[in-house]
Amino acid sequence: MILSCGGRVLQREKVFEYIDRHYNEHLSKLQELVKQPSISAENRGVRECAGLVKSYLKDLGCKDSRLVETSGFPVVYGYYDAGADKTIIVYFMYDTQPVDDPGWTVPPLEGRVANLPPFGDCLVARGAINTKGELRAFLNSCESIKAVGEEIPVNLMFVAEGEEELGSRHLPEFIEEYTGELKKADAVFFPSADQDQKGKVGIALGVKGIVYFELELDGKNWGRGPTEFDIHGSNKAWVDSPAWRMIQALSTMTLKDGNKVLIDGFYENALPPSQEDLELLEKLEKTFDEGAVKDMMKVERFIEDTHGRKAFLKYFYSPTLNINGIWGGYIGPGTKTVLPYKITAKVDVRLVPNMKVEEVLPKIRRHLDKHGFQEIKIVELEEGYGWAKTSVKEPAAQAIIKTYREFGFEPEILPHVAGSAPFCMFNREPLNLPFVMGGLGHGGRAHAPNEYIVVQEGGSTGGLCTLEKSYVAILDNLSKIS
Amino acid sequence: MILSCGGRVLQREKVFEYIDRHYNEHLSKLQELVKQPSISAENRGVRECAGLVKSYLKDLGCKDSRLVETSGFPVVYGYYDAGADKTIIVYFMYDTQPVDDPGWTVPPLEGRVANLPPFGDCLVARGAINTKGELRAFLNSCESIKAVGEEIPVNLMFVAEGEEELGSRHLPEFIEEYTGELKKADAVFFPSADQDQKGKVGIALGVKGIVYFELELDGKNWGRGPTEFDIHGSNKAWVDSPAWRMIQALSTMTLKDGNKVLIDGFYENALPPSQEDLELLEKLEKTFDEGAVKDMMKVERFIEDTHGRKAFLKYFYSPTLNINGIWGGYIGPGTKTVLPYKITAKVDVRLVPNMKVEEVLPKIRRHLDKHGFQEIKIVELEEGYGWAKTSVKEPAAQAIIKTYREFGFEPEILPHVAGSAPFCMFNREPLNLPFVMGGLGHGGRAHAPNEYIVVQEGGSTGGLCTLEKSYVAILDNLSKIS
Repeated sequence: MILSCGGRVLQREKVFEYIDRHYNEHLSKLQELVKQPSISAENRGVRECAGLVKSYLKDLGCKDSRLVETSGFPVVYGYYDAGADKTIIVYFMYDTQPVDDPGWTVPPLEGRVANLPPFGDCLVARGAINTKGELRAFLNSCESIKAVGEEIPVNLMFVAEGEEELGSRHLPEFIEEYTGELKKADAVFFPSADQDQKGKVGIALGVKGIVYFELELDGKNWGRGPTEFDIHGSNKAWVDSPAWRMIQALSTMTLKDGNKVLIDGFYENALPPSQEDLELLEKLEKTFDEGAVKDMMKVERFIEDTHGRKAFLKYFYSPTLNINGIWGGYIGPGTKTVLPYKITAKVDVRLVPNMKVEEVLPKIRRHLDKHGFQEIKIVELEEGYGWAKTSVKEPAAQAIIKTYREFGFEPEILPHVAGSAPFCMFNREPLNLPFVMGGLGHGGRAHAPNEYIVVQEGGSTGGLCTLEKSYVAILDNLSKIS
Repeated sequence: MILSCGGRVLQREKVFEYIDRHYNEHLSKLQELVKQPSISAENRGVRECAGLVKSYLKDLGCKDSRLVETSGFPVVYGYYDAGADKTIIVYFMYDTQPVDDPGWTVPPLEGRVANLPPFGDCLVARGAINTKGELRAFLNSCESIKAVGEEIPVNLMFVAEGEEELGSRHLPEFIEEYTGELKKADAVFFPSADQDQKGKVGIALGVKGIVYFELELDGKNWGRGPTEFDIHGSNKAWVDSPAWRMIQALSTMTLKDGNKVLIDGFYENALPPSQEDLELLEKLEKTFDEGAVKDMMKVERFIEDTHGRKAFLKYFYSPTLNINGIWGGYIGPGTKTVLPYKITAKVDVRLVPNMKVEEVLPKIRRHLDKHGFQEIKIVELEEGYGWAKTSVKEPAAQAIIKTYREFGFEPEILPHVAGSAPFCMFNREPLNLPFVMGGLGHGGRAHAPNEYIVVQEGGSTGGLCTLEKSYVAILDNLSKIS
């Protein structure tokens, strides 16, 4: 039975107490979800995971939960009617990165709990923080509200996509199909866990855009070098090398430092910080913990040895050209001598406001052609998506900030982060909805081995119970936005 | 019982007929040997293969066959006393390249026979031509001589090494220990199969030298970039990239074409062809089948679109700087976004007369330092070995040429090939022995998938029986050198 909760006051404390008492069960729900592989890049378990998420939405009481097919993996859609005034789209991603990276000290898909100082117990698994942990914690929060006889204070439209790690390439198909429904919402919320490892809270108001592609050269396309297989290395004396040629092509794209990009127009349209951003940055400088950030990434120095404001100006406002991976020829142990017939580099470009997705690949192509590398092929891996920003003045953003203050935290407000997420699909045409993310908890090593989310309380950050309580409070505060 | 064969005439026809009648058994001996993995780069089956080769030498009747331990894999040594005037060192390698290359259409270690037009039946397996096929065929020849009641016309010192594919790094230890024995020999013979795919015969009088190393850069050594693991790719905005930096470093080493090497002194000491070489090259030009060579490698064009004499002058007399493989970051399917902490390139330098092995790495180091890439590490994978040449006037070389003529072939004489083999360890101090290779047969795709040796007669090249007969004749002719 769905009750209207219009005007009711959510009894947070009752819910919080319930959450504390059900820690073990809630943790085991997170473990269940990370154990279900959903590696979109490898088409491993993705559809099974969609089914699992759909069952979660049904269990919560969504009157409507379904897999919405796209040209790729399905979007799991669910509508929870709380009879409330406000409606919030909850954006989830149910896919994860691969698990092939060396360095995992626990099996990445077993849902192991390990003690990681200074945090205490953490769930260590692929997806733990990016973002199955938050997905399931959010649902635990919703279930807890109902379990104590309360009602969720807002209506929820769940949109869980299975291709975030592939660049959300088919999410626009879903949004187009469901535009009528989605436009009824007041804001979009992406549950996250935004404490750093010392417990400091940040709120990110936007993301960079991304275009991801491969640069590929083989002897067949080139008409030079070996065309079908790696040949004996001694033939380098009279046969051209696609590997050397690719290195020459790539080297024209940056200065010797590998940072400054030399592609014509690469920095075109990149805006400097706005007045609102500058005000935020001024506050940010006072609380920015450079040491903690570096320690987390195991990085000793920032580019050009910058610090503080100068460093995060780079982080926020630099478009980047990054090599994610490169390979060709013999890459095993020892000394096999071959002349490789093919070499490939995985490259991504991150876009800041107001750079345009559709200009990226043509600029790369023109650059290669201009330098005489017509033979190098650009293989588009995803269409890419743009940057996104929500103003700090948005009521939804203020609801998140208010929540943090209620929990005793004065958040760092980041105008945007350097990571990418498909927020622009919600906060531009046709939906034009404010997009916010938040949650009090911590995790790390997304896209890296030993990805983790803190589950135990009492360490330097909130654990699973704090995270779930913060989602309850966020929902409560979002129900009051005007 | 060992009989002296001094002055006896070898009844070749009797042996040849025996070889024809025992084709199936002889082929199965080749299959047995290729089925025993001996991948030195991976330490896979090498010692077991050494044991197998030792048992072969014992079966042949070597009064002395043993594993001679070195700091690496053992050398299998055997002495066969034929009571003859002449003594020949037979150089074998019993190790092979890895089998991880994609593109194998048969399992690489099963000894499968497949029909490959225009050759007919071929043994398709790792090691088939490089060089387990020849090793076992040579032993079949020796056994056939004895089986018909004849005696092998020369004494044989077998030296079978298990680290050829690792650059023969510990062969010098063996040579030092056995110098006294080895100096008693008159020449060194390396059984090979030197017909091209149309049946034309070549004899190679020398090899280039080789130095093989890795260039490696990680954030730890650099003091910049991620130091321990790949981090989220968005951090490229403020964290340096070892991958871009390595590309910049590598790009300084060649011109844009990837061919001309820009390392100071790289071409120093490289000799132009000698007068003897020039005479050989003049003849060579008339028979050089460019199309066949290109077709074999699936190469459409040589460097700078050279042809004929100009092409093989490059092949013979160019030192090379080759990238055998390069890798770093995420190299799986799809779009994982990471900033890689490490990148590695496997590089080899081939040396022509009179380049010096010991000068190669210091020149690379100076080049990197001069261009400001002190942080790039050179990891030496093998000590390397020098080029080697035997004069065409050497009686041992003439014995091979005579054999080919007896079989109706006028051989192409190559002053040397661009491949590398540890011949210099035999034909320089302290042994100073002429080194020759030869055999009438054909195989291909060494260091590549679907490596093969032709076993059937009647195709465009000799098969296993012809190969074995040619070894019988070579031994006979070597017994008569003065």
